Amino acid sequence: MTKVAVLSAGSWGTAFALVLADGGGDVTLWGRRQEVVDRINERHENTEYLPGIQVPPTVDATTDPEKALAGADVVVWSMPSQTLRSTLEGWRDLVPRDAVSVSLMKGVELGTVKRMSEVIEESLDVPRRQVAVVSGPNLAKEIARREPAASVVACEDEETAVRLQKLVHTPAFRPYTTTDVVGCEIGGAYKNVVALSVGMAVGLGFGDNTTASVITRGLAETARLSMALGANPLTLMGLAGLGDLVATCSSPLSRNRTFGERLGHGMTTEEIYASTRQVAEGAKSCSSLRDLARRTGVDAPIADHVDEVVAGRMTARDMMESFVARETKAETD
Amino acid sequence: MTKVAVLSAGSWGTAFALVLADGGGDVTLWGRRQEVVDRINERHENTEYLPGIQVPPTVDATTDPEKALAGADVVVWSMPSQTLRSTLEGWRDLVPRDAVSVSLMKGVELGTVKRMSEVIEESLDVPRRQVAVVSGPNLAKEIARREPAASVVACEDEETAVRLQKLVHTPAFRPYTTTDVVGCEIGGAYKNVVALSVGMAVGLGFGDNTTASVITRGLAETARLSMALGANPLTLMGLAGLGDLVATCSSPLSRNRTFGERLGHGMTTEEIYASTRQVAEGAKSCSSLRDLARRTGVDAPIADHVDEVVAGRMTARDMMESFVARETKAETD
Repeated sequence: MTKVAVLSAGSWGTAFALVLADGGGDVTLWGRRQEVVDRINERHENTEYLPGIQVPPTVDATTDPEKALAGADVVVWSMPSQTLRSTLEGWRDLVPRDAVSVSLMKGVELGTVKRMSEVIEESLDVPRRQVAVVSGPNLAKEIARREPAASVVACEDEETAVRLQKLVHTPAFRPYTTTDVVGCEIGGAYKNVVALSVGMAVGLGFGDNTTASVITRGLAETARLSMALGANPLTLMGLAGLGDLVATCSSPLSRNRTFGERLGHGMTTEEIYASTRQVAEGAKSCSSLRDLARRTGVDAPIADHVDEVVAGRMTARDMMESFVARETKAETD
Repeated sequence: MTKVAVLSAGSWGTAFALVLADGGGDVTLWGRRQEVVDRINERHENTEYLPGIQVPPTVDATTDPEKALAGADVVVWSMPSQTLRSTLEGWRDLVPRDAVSVSLMKGVELGTVKRMSEVIEESLDVPRRQVAVVSGPNLAKEIARREPAASVVACEDEETAVRLQKLVHTPAFRPYTTTDVVGCEIGGAYKNVVALSVGMAVGLGFGDNTTASVITRGLAETARLSMALGANPLTLMGLAGLGDLVATCSSPLSRNRTFGERLGHGMTTEEIYASTRQVAEGAKSCSSLRDLARRTGVDAPIADHVDEVVAGRMTARDMMESFVARETKAETD
C-alpha cells in the first residue's frame, strides 16, 4: 500500500486526497488549522473548504508535518505558489529522500520566475525525475462529488508518471500520462491569468463572442511562451491546456474569474483582497509570467495588461478596449 | 460602393447584413417570407429573427432573388447547408459571373461530403478564388447589438480575402484574413457536433470538468480531420476553431447545444424537431462529418457517437458513459 502525504487541506488538496483514498492509497492530510484537522478526523468532513462532502475515514488528518511526511512514498504539494519555497525549506529534512513529489500548484514564483516543480527540485534538492505535476480540467468541488473528470500526470520520467497514474486512477478520475512537465505547468499558471481577463470581460458586460476571443488569444499566448520554453504544443491543445482553461473560464465558481469580474466592476485589488479570504493565483502569476515572457523574448499582451490592471496602473475597461481595438491583420501574424 | 446581396434573412444573415451596412456596403437582403421582408422595409426590424434590433434603412429587403442578385459584386450565402445546392442550381443564372461568393454556412453536405464552399464552386461553376468563408466566435444576437467580436475571412486568394476584410471591418467587427478555407469550414461544421455533445452532457447533469473535456477532445478530433484534409493546425487553435467552439458551447442560446440538452433529457430527435422550428446544423452534419472522417481514414469517436444518438440507435447517457470510460492511456496516443 502506497503511503501518501497531502499538504495542505485546502479544497483541491482535500479533493485530491479523496481521489488518492478512492485509488487505494494510505493517505495523511496535513492542515495548518487545528479545527479543520479535528473536524476531518472526527466528522470526516472538511467543513471549511468542501462542506457536505464525506472524507473517507481512511484519510488521517494532522497539523504535524513530521507525522504527515514520515515514511511517505509520495508527497503531494498543494499550497499557495508564493509561499511554497519557504515552507519546503522549513520541512526539507522531514521529506523522505526517495519520495516522489507531486505538485498540484498552478503558479510561477515571483522574482525567480521558476515553475513549481523547479522550486520543489531546488528546495528539496531532489532529481527532476522525482518530481511530477497533476493538471487538467479539475474543479475541486466536482472531483470531490466524484463527477467524472480526466487529468494529466506529467513527469520527465515516464515510469514515475505511469506509477502515479495507477495510484490516482478511480472510476471517476481518469489520468493520462505525459513527459511534458513544462507545458502542463505553464498551461496551468497561464489559465489563471486568462481567467482573470475573462472575468474582467464578464464584469464589464461583454458577451460570449468576446470571452471566446479572449480564451482563444489567451491559449495562443500560453502556447507561444510554452513552446519557447520547450513544451509540446499538443499539451496546450489538451486537457492541461485548453481543458483546464475552458473549465476555469466556464465556472462561475472559479476564484480567478471571480477576481477578474470584481476588477471589471471597478473594484481595486486591495478592495477585493479585503472582501475575500481566498487566494487568486492569477493575481500574482500575471506578474511572474509577464516577467518570464519578457526574459524569454515572447510577446505576452494579456499577461502584460492583466498585470497592469491588478497593479492599479490601468482600468479593466481600458484593458478590454485595447484588446478589442487591436489592429486588423492576418490571424497568424 | 460595393453592391452586396445577402441570402437569406435568418438571424446570422440579417446580423451580417448589418455588419456590411455598417462597413459602408450597398446591401440587399433576400428573404423567403413576404411578411419578414415587408417588416424589414417598413419597420426596419427583422421581428422574426432579431427582434428589437434596428436594421439600417440603407438595407433593402426583397423576396425576389433576381432583384437581390442583379449587379452584385459580392454574394453572401446563409442558408441551411442541406438545401444550398438545390437553391444555387435554381438561381445559378441570376448570379453575376464575376461576383465573389461568401459562405456563412457551417455544415457538410450529406452524401457528397462536400464543404459549403465546394458546393458553391460546383453549383455556380466558379473558380475557387471567387469563393470565401467567414467564420469565428460570432453569435448573431451579439453581433447585431454591435458587441465587439473578431472573425476570420478565408479565401484561397489572399487579395480577395483582404478585399472582403475591408468590406466588413467596422468599429465592432474585426475580421482577420487567412487562406485556410478547409480549416475554417471543418472547424465551423464540427463545432456544431461538439456543441451537441456538450449539450448532452449538460442535459444529463455533468459539470464543467466533463464539458471542458468534451470540448478538448472535440477540438482534437476536429484538428485531426482538418489536418488530414490539408488544413493548418493553427486555424483550429484560432478564432474559427477554438473561438467559435467555445462561444457556441458557452452560450445557452446556441441551437446545437440546446438540441443536445434535449437529447440529454431523453427526448428523441423527432420529438425535438416537433417542438421547435429552428434547424440544428449539427444534427445533420454529425452524419456527413462521420462519413467524411471514415472516407479520410480518421478516427472520429465524437461524430460517430453523436450520429448514433441523433439517429436513435444509442442513448445520450450511453454515449457520455462511453466517453468517460475511455481507456486510460498516454494523452497524445
